[in-house]
Amino acid sequence: MARPADIIRPVDDVAAYMQAVGEAARSASEVLARATTADKNAALGAIAESIEARAGMLAEANARDLEAAGAAQLAAALLDRLELTEARITAMAEGLRQIAALPDPVGEVSNLVMRPSGIQVGRMRVPLGVIGIIYESRPNVTADAAGLCLKAGNATILRGGSEAIHSNTAIAACIHEGLNRAGLPAQCVQVVETVDRAAVGALITMDAHVDVIVPRGGKSLIERISREATVPVIKHLDGICHVYVDDRADCDKAIAIAYNAKTQRYGTCCTMETLLVARGVAARVLPPLAEQYRAAGVELRGCAETRALVPECNAASDEDWDTEYLAPILSIRVVADIDEAMDHIRVHGSQHTDSIVTEDLTRARRFLREVDSSSVMVNASTRFADGFEYGLGAEIGISTDKLHARGPVGLEGLTTQKFIVIGDGHVRQ
Amino acid sequence: MARPADIIRPVDDVAAYMQAVGEAARSASEVLARATTADKNAALGAIAESIEARAGMLAEANARDLEAAGAAQLAAALLDRLELTEARITAMAEGLRQIAALPDPVGEVSNLVMRPSGIQVGRMRVPLGVIGIIYESRPNVTADAAGLCLKAGNATILRGGSEAIHSNTAIAACIHEGLNRAGLPAQCVQVVETVDRAAVGALITMDAHVDVIVPRGGKSLIERISREATVPVIKHLDGICHVYVDDRADCDKAIAIAYNAKTQRYGTCCTMETLLVARGVAARVLPPLAEQYRAAGVELRGCAETRALVPECNAASDEDWDTEYLAPILSIRVVADIDEAMDHIRVHGSQHTDSIVTEDLTRARRFLREVDSSSVMVNASTRFADGFEYGLGAEIGISTDKLHARGPVGLEGLTTQKFIVIGDGHVRQ
Repeated sequence: MARPADIIRPVDDVAAYMQAVGEAARSASEVLARATTADKNAALGAIAESIEARAGMLAEANARDLEAAGAAQLAAALLDRLELTEARITAMAEGLRQIAALPDPVGEVSNLVMRPSGIQVGRMRVPLGVIGIIYESRPNVTADAAGLCLKAGNATILRGGSEAIHSNTAIAACIHEGLNRAGLPAQCVQVVETVDRAAVGALITMDAHVDVIVPRGGKSLIERISREATVPVIKHLDGICHVYVDDRADCDKAIAIAYNAKTQRYGTCCTMETLLVARGVAARVLPPLAEQYRAAGVELRGCAETRALVPECNAASDEDWDTEYLAPILSIRVVADIDEAMDHIRVHGSQHTDSIVTEDLTRARRFLREVDSSSVMVNASTRFADGFEYGLGAEIGISTDKLHARGPVGLEGLTTQKFIVIGDGHVRQ
Repeated sequence: MARPADIIRPVDDVAAYMQAVGEAARSASEVLARATTADKNAALGAIAESIEARAGMLAEANARDLEAAGAAQLAAALLDRLELTEARITAMAEGLRQIAALPDPVGEVSNLVMRPSGIQVGRMRVPLGVIGIIYESRPNVTADAAGLCLKAGNATILRGGSEAIHSNTAIAACIHEGLNRAGLPAQCVQVVETVDRAAVGALITMDAHVDVIVPRGGKSLIERISREATVPVIKHLDGICHVYVDDRADCDKAIAIAYNAKTQRYGTCCTMETLLVARGVAARVLPPLAEQYRAAGVELRGCAETRALVPECNAASDEDWDTEYLAPILSIRVVADIDEAMDHIRVHGSQHTDSIVTEDLTRARRFLREVDSSSVMVNASTRFADGFEYGLGAEIGISTDKLHARGPVGLEGLTTQKFIVIGDGHVRQ
């Protein structure tokens, strides 16, 4: 197998190169759409083996990226995400085996019914075709995303960050080895082998060859792609998530949920950013909760009523209600009731994940029905908004769009349904 | 009630006007999303009554449009589509009552399962929000589309053709009367009351206020909207539909299906435009079929082998295979087998509707799985590709997209699903 340095080929004409990549992906997608579940699982297993067998080569390629990133003085957080530790390499292989173990969504026929005309009509789940993934930094996305798309029967074009090009290309070499061993075309998974940014522009406008774009990365990346893409985008923007503690809440549950939703992990999109508390329970809930946040090192920014109950709380500005901190900071507001809470969520939320804590059935039903977010919860931490927790097996991302896929996107979101009709010589009258 | 002439108000600042329409639609959509099934059905019934009660006013408004269209020398076909006959007015009211009788998709919870963590996770079907409909000529679309969107809990902004502005505005007045009587905001359904084309540009780029655009009209209209829209579009482009007669077909069924698929109606998107016949049965199928087509006045354009069997058949040019005739014209090609047929469909088809005629189970299964079209059929006429025939109750259009909705789009395609999570104080470990 070639060393990473030999793999990255010089690309003179980016448009022509991307066109060739797109055509190859389309051809491969037609083979992959017909592939059996056994073939796809064999490929996933073979890729996992190749990744484990070539861990040394992957580490070597990753070292080159880390060295260049260090020289370019990338932030420590980026360096951390870029690193392929032994544990991460093992996790990549393990993740592929988990995907192999998931049920194959392709070919499932649902709702096959006999119509009055005599025809049978149903829907068959089929791959989308070609999926373009645009992501930053973390090279393990290369294996995770390619594996999920492969299982769903889609060819993938992967465009990772330039800082991870050697790592990604080395992972791609393992993927190709596995595909070859399973008898599937290597073009089922292609890594864009140029750091030229024009490649992104080409990828997101190749309507004839790409069916959907999944961007994974920061807000500015996703906004730019959404703006410029002509290919449909499954996008994931802000997660400004709320927990509303109703005045009919069980205060112990409320405190446990509000603490967990903020502190279980600070940097995820389903972390709570704003806590809303009904006036009727604010005095019982906020002081003990503030005590816990203080111990965890969470900075509090509250409305006047909150500050009257929690003296060490800073004053929240208007911007705080619209900010995704992704950090140990929490804004807190005391509200009159569920209506004021839902109004706040409608105006300031990002339609990602919102939770109510209440023992009142009618209010729980109202919140579930009326809050227009991709995940709406009752008496549970917003941190549960996750493909694994929801039983999707794995996720390619979390969609904040309403069309096609909403919330965590797993294998099903990477497929579509076509109508099938079975007759016996039937004609329309 | 005001006369149509008084209803159409002068619009000076189109951008500001459309912004106000969008904001009103968003507010109304929030009320409508919470409306009960009974409320929505009451509104549909009241609108139907209003349309019947005000048939005279509708005819009068329509006469103004017809007069202007006549003066502008519109084509006879357009004039016919523009006319609101008594039968069409009755059909509009009847259509609304049929929509009221359909099951309400909103609020349905599916796949509610208990996860290992102890939370329950399911999906709740909810409205999309605000739907913009852009259509041409036929004023009955105003009632049909508004009714379907209303039942699915969505507010609608309707932009019809300028030639039907008086008719559409008069229908809107009936809709508003019905909404008022049912206690729902009139802004649930708004007709754009200006013929200024800038209104379309505003509608398709109001991402904050509009969730999806459904264009209904000719290919050039839809292509323009797809190109310029930033709001997602459920689009319907060409229907270049194929019937493939396999050499294991029952020839009687093949002839019946091929005749029906072409002649049952010429102008629909699911009408067959190209007939593919396996070499092994061409001599048995094509001559008697050509005889029937000749009697129906269908012009035939074929490959050399077809012409050898059907002397009166014209020669097909390369363009014929890529043409949606929407007319009594049919292109015919003799192919070797199912592989060549599927290759032809892949290269020349529009992924709309394609059918195989065969008694061979393995070939039927291959065709169903491998042909990547929104409807794939076995032993049935392509003319069945229709929301009513499929049991959707009604359709807002037929999507040739892959994401979100594919094929005929009914109530379900006008909704989305959000995740719901129900716990009992659950936090993530």
